[in-house]
Amino acid sequence: MTGTVAPWLATLTPAEHSIIVYSLSVAGLALFAFFAKSWVSRNEVTTRYRGSVYAGMTITGIAFLSYLLLVVEFAIGYHQRGGMWVPDANAELSWAPRYFDWTVTVPLLIVEFLAVATIVGGAARRLRAVGIAAAFLMISTGFIGGVVVDSGQSLVALGVWGGISGIFMVLLYVLIIYVMVKVGRDLAGTAAAASLRNAGILLLVTWFAYPIIFGLQGWGHGGAVTTWMQVILSVADIVAKVGFGVLIHKVATVRSALDVTAGEDTHPESIWISSEKLSGAIVPTTATDAHFLTRARSTADAHVDGR
Amino acid sequence: MTGTVAPWLATLTPAEHSIIVYSLSVAGLALFAFFAKSWVSRNEVTTRYRGSVYAGMTITGIAFLSYLLLVVEFAIGYHQRGGMWVPDANAELSWAPRYFDWTVTVPLLIVEFLAVATIVGGAARRLRAVGIAAAFLMISTGFIGGVVVDSGQSLVALGVWGGISGIFMVLLYVLIIYVMVKVGRDLAGTAAAASLRNAGILLLVTWFAYPIIFGLQGWGHGGAVTTWMQVILSVADIVAKVGFGVLIHKVATVRSALDVTAGEDTHPESIWISSEKLSGAIVPTTATDAHFLTRARSTADAHVDGR
Amino acid sequence: MTGTVAPWLATLTPAEHSIIVYSLSVAGLALFAFFAKSWVSRNEVTTRYRGSVYAGMTITGIAFLSYLLLVVEFAIGYHQRGGMWVPDANAELSWAPRYFDWTVTVPLLIVEFLAVATIVGGAARRLRAVGIAAAFLMISTGFIGGVVVDSGQSLVALGVWGGISGIFMVLLYVLIIYVMVKVGRDLAGTAAAASLRNAGILLLVTWFAYPIIFGLQGWGHGGAVTTWMQVILSVADIVAKVGFGVLIHKVATVRSALDVTAGEDTHPESIWISSEKLSGAIVPTTATDAHFLTRARSTADAHVDGR
Amino acid sequence: MTGTVAPWLATLTPAEHSIIVYSLSVAGLALFAFFAKSWVSRNEVTTRYRGSVYAGMTITGIAFLSYLLLVVEFAIGYHQRGGMWVPDANAELSWAPRYFDWTVTVPLLIVEFLAVATIVGGAARRLRAVGIAAAFLMISTGFIGGVVVDSGQSLVALGVWGGISGIFMVLLYVLIIYVMVKVGRDLAGTAAAASLRNAGILLLVTWFAYPIIFGLQGWGHGGAVTTWMQVILSVADIVAKVGFGVLIHKVATVRSALDVTAGEDTHPESIWISSEKLSGAIVPTTATDAHFLTRARSTADAHVDGR
Amino acid sequence: MTGTVAPWLATLTPAEHSIIVYSLSVAGLALFAFFAKSWVSRNEVTTRYRGSVYAGMTITGIAFLSYLLLVVEFAIGYHQRGGMWVPDANAELSWAPRYFDWTVTVPLLIVEFLAVATIVGGAARRLRAVGIAAAFLMISTGFIGGVVVDSGQSLVALGVWGGISGIFMVLLYVLIIYVMVKVGRDLAGTAAAASLRNAGILLLVTWFAYPIIFGLQGWGHGGAVTTWMQVILSVADIVAKVGFGVLIHKVATVRSALDVTAGEDTHPESIWISSEKLSGAIVPTTATDAHFLTRARSTADAHVDGR
Repeated sequence: MTGTVAPWLATLTPAEHSIIVYSLSVAGLALFAFFAKSWVSRNEVTTRYRGSVYAGMTITGIAFLSYLLLVVEFAIGYHQRGGMWVPDANAELSWAPRYFDWTVTVPLLIVEFLAVATIVGGAARRLRAVGIAAAFLMISTGFIGGVVVDSGQSLVALGVWGGISGIFMVLLYVLIIYVMVKVGRDLAGTAAAASLRNAGILLLVTWFAYPIIFGLQGWGHGGAVTTWMQVILSVADIVAKVGFGVLIHKVATVRSALDVTAGEDTHPESIWISSEKLSGAIVPTTATDAHFLTRARSTADAHVDGR
Repeated sequence: MTGTVAPWLATLTPAEHSIIVYSLSVAGLALFAFFAKSWVSRNEVTTRYRGSVYAGMTITGIAFLSYLLLVVEFAIGYHQRGGMWVPDANAELSWAPRYFDWTVTVPLLIVEFLAVATIVGGAARRLRAVGIAAAFLMISTGFIGGVVVDSGQSLVALGVWGGISGIFMVLLYVLIIYVMVKVGRDLAGTAAAASLRNAGILLLVTWFAYPIIFGLQGWGHGGAVTTWMQVILSVADIVAKVGFGVLIHKVATVRSALDVTAGEDTHPESIWISSEKLSGAIVPTTATDAHFLTRARSTADAHVDGR
Repeated sequence: MTGTVAPWLATLTPAEHSIIVYSLSVAGLALFAFFAKSWVSRNEVTTRYRGSVYAGMTITGIAFLSYLLLVVEFAIGYHQRGGMWVPDANAELSWAPRYFDWTVTVPLLIVEFLAVATIVGGAARRLRAVGIAAAFLMISTGFIGGVVVDSGQSLVALGVWGGISGIFMVLLYVLIIYVMVKVGRDLAGTAAAASLRNAGILLLVTWFAYPIIFGLQGWGHGGAVTTWMQVILSVADIVAKVGFGVLIHKVATVRSALDVTAGEDTHPESIWISSEKLSGAIVPTTATDAHFLTRARSTADAHVDGR
Repeated sequence: MTGTVAPWLATLTPAEHSIIVYSLSVAGLALFAFFAKSWVSRNEVTTRYRGSVYAGMTITGIAFLSYLLLVVEFAIGYHQRGGMWVPDANAELSWAPRYFDWTVTVPLLIVEFLAVATIVGGAARRLRAVGIAAAFLMISTGFIGGVVVDSGQSLVALGVWGGISGIFMVLLYVLIIYVMVKVGRDLAGTAAAASLRNAGILLLVTWFAYPIIFGLQGWGHGGAVTTWMQVILSVADIVAKVGFGVLIHKVATVRSALDVTAGEDTHPESIWISSEKLSGAIVPTTATDAHFLTRARSTADAHVDGR
Repeated sequence: MTGTVAPWLATLTPAEHSIIVYSLSVAGLALFAFFAKSWVSRNEVTTRYRGSVYAGMTITGIAFLSYLLLVVEFAIGYHQRGGMWVPDANAELSWAPRYFDWTVTVPLLIVEFLAVATIVGGAARRLRAVGIAAAFLMISTGFIGGVVVDSGQSLVALGVWGGISGIFMVLLYVLIIYVMVKVGRDLAGTAAAASLRNAGILLLVTWFAYPIIFGLQGWGHGGAVTTWMQVILSVADIVAKVGFGVLIHKVATVRSALDVTAGEDTHPESIWISSEKLSGAIVPTTATDAHFLTRARSTADAHVDGR
């Protein structure tokens, strides 16, 4: 037989229904918290690394919107009948929006990761382009197999498109490991290297949850399976977006402080982590200081000449 | 007999209905006020203590969203019939979202508390990790007994999971008392120590309301009991989130002023409490001051080497 | 007879319906304007008086949310039948949310008022605590008589709870007059004193509208009475929140300029009112100026020692 | 005969329905754009003229909310029947909210206009008070004739209240012309004068649309008339709020640059229009410069003494 | 035959339905991300080029609102019947809002493009006025043929109005090419010129999608055609708004850095692209530097004298 039953078609017990609405809501609220926190604290790292804050902020903002939709569709897509919760046509939208979210946020996770790495200039731009493309293709091909073809109930489509998606996933794993190794060497011995390594490991491990859930869609079904899938995906989203964001933010903070203390950059506020001062506040020189202007101009000339 | 009746299944008199909608709305509006105020005033404390402002802001933001849901579900979950308000299947969501909120906000309350304490570096990170884990487990195990098992109507589940939840609560009480004692010693004689002590006591006292309400779920029921529970939980949320936030903000403000006057930090605006000036405004040195750069660099080197 | 008819149970003519929706909407939009304006202009006064801006901002933000609810509930709570608008069970929520709003905003009005007054330190904190408590009790006891008991239709409850509420109102009047007198003396001859006096008078006069409306609830009813009540309450809310906020903001602005010109504070932008310059912009001294540090430290020591 | 048919009672063809929803939506989106742009760019003019930015921002914010309501009510107030769109009781709210918006925004337009004019101090405050009152009365009396009396279908009411409204309109025209003449003389030869004159002319011309539409309500009706009225009002709102706002913002920008270059004010960023630099960035003197403090104090003393 | 079938009248298979909701949602989330990112990062370029950031921000903000409406209307405008999704009267609004969005955003795209070009002063203002008018007319005439006349089902109207719209499109192509050539010459050899050229090419290519889709409306129909149209329009909107915005932002960033290093402007933060420093941070001179004041005044005099 080549068919299966999509997870959003299973009838749920009251306990399963409560657990799913709990998982979705808690994930949504945690994502909202990180979004709001990133929005207001964006200027605490220097401009060099601020791209990572913007990425983390938009990732959790998008995911929050997605979870809002998941919660609403879960509320209106299931109806209590005879002590059980039975899904209707809307129930698919308590599952599919995850793919909408991932299509935009996984490429942004790569941007967030690279923004604090030690790869610079043209090399950074090329790696970023490859990573964004691979991430987009990994999710969109997965969506074709997991939702589009036969409403996600064709084992063949799950296998074929899952396989194609998997190729891009391998590519991303190579990219992540490459960055971890390079940063580990370039910043050896700093807290920045340690946190970036932890962030990379966290991605490598958490991302495993997604193909497993994807595979489960073809192998088993029923309320209990759907519940496990929703809980695991919610936890994975919290870890891969909020937990990852916290680690990347630490890298950005430590590297900002290193740049300030090395005289490579200025920052109007002192930088602290866990009540330990990493760098003091320092304001730029004023426009009348001719020497500074001269030095800065020559630095810029070297970088701005063409792409 | 091992069963009880969940609080969201009780029929309400018009007066009870009015009191509950009043409690939920007032709590929601008070939480909104603190959220908005924290958002716009975040830069009035130095970066060292600003984590507490972010925590207080996201706590009240999340709780505001949760109360918005409670109010909406309360409005659509009860219907006037024969002069009384009778609940339907939606009524559970005028109760359960409290657990969604607490699962994220109680760990953040620990973060808010520790962000103004005198524990620094690795010790702070370890204590924070333990506190976050304990807070998460306290709420999530409570949710299992209070909502998931038999729709919150099993006395056995209330007892067993309530007990497990209680263990983590004891752990958090120990943590809070430890911090109060340490800060009291480290900052003896300052307004910061007094306010932190008050904040700790406030948590210790207010949090008692939650297990009492949890226990009430197993011991009594009816519209009056449900009304008392909703009022007490709303008041407890205002006190433990807004009242606690005001006290912690005072600690952060006073400590910021102390750091500025001690020359340990700079702040572009003067710091006042109740129209009394605690510290004057002071801008950082400029990038050309070589001595500052040298001093800052050595400070940073000591902190940035490894995690 | 001891009963009356609640204002939200009256049938309305089309003209009355139009006038009420007009009043509620105009009030809501005016409150939104002040909320947004306060949010973006919050840094135009010095930190010493900024608490008044936060209070005015959250007051109008909360009231805007409340009027949003009033408008929505008014739209869904009345149905056109035979050329008239007949209320249903939802209509109560086109009235009661005013109490939800006031319970939080009236205490905040006291905070806004005191934040620009000349009472400082412990005296300010005590007066604020008393004012907040009295304001909260004035509204919550009014709610019991006006909505909770017999759905606001008991003349006895209106009288008894209205009386209790009135005692707290008298207390607040004493507080407001005391502050007006003290500020008038301390800042005699300045625009700040004049504006604060006007703000106080405005509160004293406008607040009279509320008990009159409350009393009307027991004395008359019908569409015309309900319409007058809704119009007067909407106007009173605009005057007591937006008009009052404008006057208090002027006090905060003038006092900020006085502090800057007296050398007591700094402000990065010049302060103007009606195109007249009150003070020039001035930035703080830099961290290397040892004298400043020494002076600031001694100032702080005096204030920070204990609560 | 003394009756007419209100514009929101006409049946619409599909083409008319499409054109109205297009006009309302485009106006709403344009207003949103100006609101968001004003919010984020508010600090690009000096504090002296910033009141005009706040006014423009809140005007378009309020109008955006109003158009949101118009679009929603237009969507739910008309139903397709036999190839035509037939209005129901909600359709009135696809028209009346314009008055809610104008009641708050027209007074704010006067504030916006005066905030960049050369009238200062008490004269500015008096003119502003008169303008706000006249603008409010112009709209509210129009609302009585156009919507309240006989649901806007009484020719007598349209005539009488339209006439009263017209008196206040004449008053506002006098005010606007007076300001144009005075600014034209005070700032003769600058781009500021030219833009303010254009802004004034724009108001004088655009505002003519409103009484014409008001009059049309009594003279003709049917789907085509309603469509023309909705299109013209939408265009007039874009021109009088966004177009006017762009011109006033130019006045504020040019005058800010003039003040900075004249040494009357400072601004932390350079001011450019169309890639031409009007003034360089300049930061204020620091708190240690005694001379500055002395000078500023004497300036303030002159202005702060009483209202 | 002179009629066709509007794309929003086609019945969709489940796969087509899934693909369309996916395209609309992904586009909406990507637009939201760029909107939020632009909002928070607006101050990273100098004031001279910041108009491009505001344009990009409002463009994506408007488009996000439009896609929100598209998604909602798509959800409520199609109903599952016999395994297929059948449209109702609401389905038109899962298509038409694109025109509402474009009417405001295409003129803003021209503003965004010109804000980083090398055309200045009166020439810039004239070009901008022409571009805004042409863009508005291109979309509004297209709307008449594509939606208004015969509900978009008249081949004659599609041809005639499509032709008129096309004339304005040619005009815009000439404008874009002119700017690309001029900037290419003025900034020859810089990364700014390269990015602006890429941005121009991107517009020229992407915009071709729109008339093709418009033409398709007259040539074919059915679920598959509708699906292709919705996917292509969603992709085109992402590319022409987000992709274009990224390139224009790079031009603004590089030109800001060039101005700072040339001493023509100041910027309080250093400017980096891909971890390469383009310019150092530099604060303006202070108000006491008489020479600066004198120089700035003479510069301004030259620019401010009349329009």
